[in-house]
Amino acid sequence: MKKKRNIIVGQSGGPTAAINASLAGVYRTARERGYQKVYGMLHGVQGLLEEKYIDLSEHITNELDEEILKRTPASFLGTCRYKLPPIHEGMETYEKIFGILEKLEIDVFIYIGGNDSMDTIKKLSDYAILKGYEQRFIGCPKTIDNDLALTDHTPGYGSAAKYIGTSMKEIIRDGICMEYDKGVVTIVEIMGRNAGWLTGASALSKGEDCEGPDLIYLPELDFDIKKFGEKIKKLLKEKGSIVVAVSEGIHTKDGTYVCDLGESIDFVDAFGHKQLSGTASYLASYIAGEFGCKTRSIELSTMQRSASHLASRIDISEAAEIGGAAVKAADEGESGEMVVFKRLSNDPYQCTTEVKNVHKIANEEKLVPREWINKEGDYVTKEFITYVKPLIQGDVAPIMVDGIPRHLYAPKELNQVHVPKK
Amino acid sequence: MKKKRNIIVGQSGGPTAAINASLAGVYRTARERGYQKVYGMLHGVQGLLEEKYIDLSEHITNELDEEILKRTPASFLGTCRYKLPPIHEGMETYEKIFGILEKLEIDVFIYIGGNDSMDTIKKLSDYAILKGYEQRFIGCPKTIDNDLALTDHTPGYGSAAKYIGTSMKEIIRDGICMEYDKGVVTIVEIMGRNAGWLTGASALSKGEDCEGPDLIYLPELDFDIKKFGEKIKKLLKEKGSIVVAVSEGIHTKDGTYVCDLGESIDFVDAFGHKQLSGTASYLASYIAGEFGCKTRSIELSTMQRSASHLASRIDISEAAEIGGAAVKAADEGESGEMVVFKRLSNDPYQCTTEVKNVHKIANEEKLVPREWINKEGDYVTKEFITYVKPLIQGDVAPIMVDGIPRHLYAPKELNQVHVPKK
Repeated sequence: MKKKRNIIVGQSGGPTAAINASLAGVYRTARERGYQKVYGMLHGVQGLLEEKYIDLSEHITNELDEEILKRTPASFLGTCRYKLPPIHEGMETYEKIFGILEKLEIDVFIYIGGNDSMDTIKKLSDYAILKGYEQRFIGCPKTIDNDLALTDHTPGYGSAAKYIGTSMKEIIRDGICMEYDKGVVTIVEIMGRNAGWLTGASALSKGEDCEGPDLIYLPELDFDIKKFGEKIKKLLKEKGSIVVAVSEGIHTKDGTYVCDLGESIDFVDAFGHKQLSGTASYLASYIAGEFGCKTRSIELSTMQRSASHLASRIDISEAAEIGGAAVKAADEGESGEMVVFKRLSNDPYQCTTEVKNVHKIANEEKLVPREWINKEGDYVTKEFITYVKPLIQGDVAPIMVDGIPRHLYAPKELNQVHVPKK
Repeated sequence: MKKKRNIIVGQSGGPTAAINASLAGVYRTARERGYQKVYGMLHGVQGLLEEKYIDLSEHITNELDEEILKRTPASFLGTCRYKLPPIHEGMETYEKIFGILEKLEIDVFIYIGGNDSMDTIKKLSDYAILKGYEQRFIGCPKTIDNDLALTDHTPGYGSAAKYIGTSMKEIIRDGICMEYDKGVVTIVEIMGRNAGWLTGASALSKGEDCEGPDLIYLPELDFDIKKFGEKIKKLLKEKGSIVVAVSEGIHTKDGTYVCDLGESIDFVDAFGHKQLSGTASYLASYIAGEFGCKTRSIELSTMQRSASHLASRIDISEAAEIGGAAVKAADEGESGEMVVFKRLSNDPYQCTTEVKNVHKIANEEKLVPREWINKEGDYVTKEFITYVKPLIQGDVAPIMVDGIPRHLYAPKELNQVHVPKK
């Protein structure tokens, strides 16, 4: 049997609270399976092209470091949004990458990311076949958006859903106690340009001790602002505090994003960047204008993807497992595949990993099924909740130092590498 | 000795993550000291005037309920921003309140709130003396803003500071990993119109594993936008990701709020409400316009006062204690007083409660001392950190049910009481 050489791993696309747990899983399984070095590309393939990488053993020195890495938000290795050119247009780029992989004696290349990252795995594995290179390429999914096809769910989604459900519950409670005699409408904007998985998770706040949001609007359906106004008008007669969850990507029937409706408050800076008011702030202005009531708009913003302090235990454990499964697949000879989750049952929740050919995956978006949204198009159904609930179970207690969660030291090159070259 | 009768307690002003711990403390000590009933006014004095109140024993039925109440965000009893009229102008209002107190056989009136609430305690206790009523009135402080005079700190501040320090650290980490080759400036807006206690707490993110925000601007000093731009320009040459913490209340030398500078994006609705862009979004537009770099603006919004899931153990324990101390003071014959914290030492942290005359307290704002802000006016000093650090120590693990923190059922009247009367 040929002696095992080295592994390289990268992270790409928007970070999540679980992406570093996958990195920890890759590291541990690589070690257990006898690989020599585990390299980490800094800022994904884009950094690799400039030979920016680290030896992970210098950063993960013991088991405690692994645990802290699992509790560290954002991409430990840095991220990129770089897309490889089509093979026939970018032979030089590919030769450069494979040159570096040969030099580093890489056997296995793992890429943790979303659709674009699976495209990278596809192209690199195709190129290897084309040119007879022996490296194996495996994709490991991540995205808070949960919009990757062929996998039951994506690592990172469960923790984001838990944060959204919890924060929504706290916001709803804050609304209920608000001032006497004044109705208040709170619009909460949640990430998701095309898929409503995150926004739907706001319904997790609903329970014996909380009514949940009053309305939930996903981008899968057209948004009718008149109908929305009528709903609010009716609700204002029934209760004092109304809370609405909206995806940032909701749009009217003609495809116009709601955040683009507020033309009057656009602002174009000297560089021509258009600064848009957000979806929530537009709707809050609209409601205030229509009904003269008090409104608030809240964006869960970056916190929904970086709140490691409220991660889901299931999500973090599964993210580590799927990282390990990626290494196992490569070690057993697979290439051009993505590891995915297959749910075996909801109650008890059981889930396993499989591999799927990346050619079937890349650039397909998985949306919330129409039948998981109610008929009116303003709430998710029981089926949606049954699907998401297992993914938010259990906690990962932060390791607190002096009152604040501890993270693993970031590679020091990370915040320098951005600096634009002159 | 006269037989003890009943206690009534209310909550007023902006909610905090600790205000219900004070309510739990009031309830427990009232019971322990032999008071008969513990009533809760719904929506403070404003609700009391319409005889809206509950019997707390119907809501807090056992010790577990007390623990859950301590973990419930927002004001359990509802809040108001109602200010009593001057005594000589509002005799009817006062007679009405005392009529209700007599009818309910109240001996002790506890009000948990900020400056306005202490004004209520002052006026009611003055009126009692004036008219010979025997009720005793004690104020119990709360505010995330930490701007009450005469107390070392206010309950609610520690938990908000812990949330801000933690979220800031997660946001900074998210910034570091961002895309290759592009500088990104993130502006985080934190509550505090006049006092910078909350914004200063963003420095708690700084530690061995995090550089902390690059710049911190408090409203205690004038904000110079030119100088700010120069700082950013310099930083953009040194690192890829820059994070700035700003108080919502920062203003230029002539007193104009920074959020009011963006006139071009104002929007006045049909009711004449002016919808302002926020401080952070204005500054993000300014920086994007000046330097053409990528910017993000984030508002910590309602979450910074309602994130019970990340409360500080010290804060919650102290909030419960000071609620108890308020009852004790009244029970021992005090009236027209506020209970306050007196810090005995920082290391080890030791803190006790005292009572202070509300006449000395009302309507005075405690600001961050000039010497706790650096010379440049863009960071807090070591002294600030020494002051705040003890207040964020320890955790209060949420009681999780099905993956989401459990709260105590809100009184069902709460969300109805808002509905505007026709």
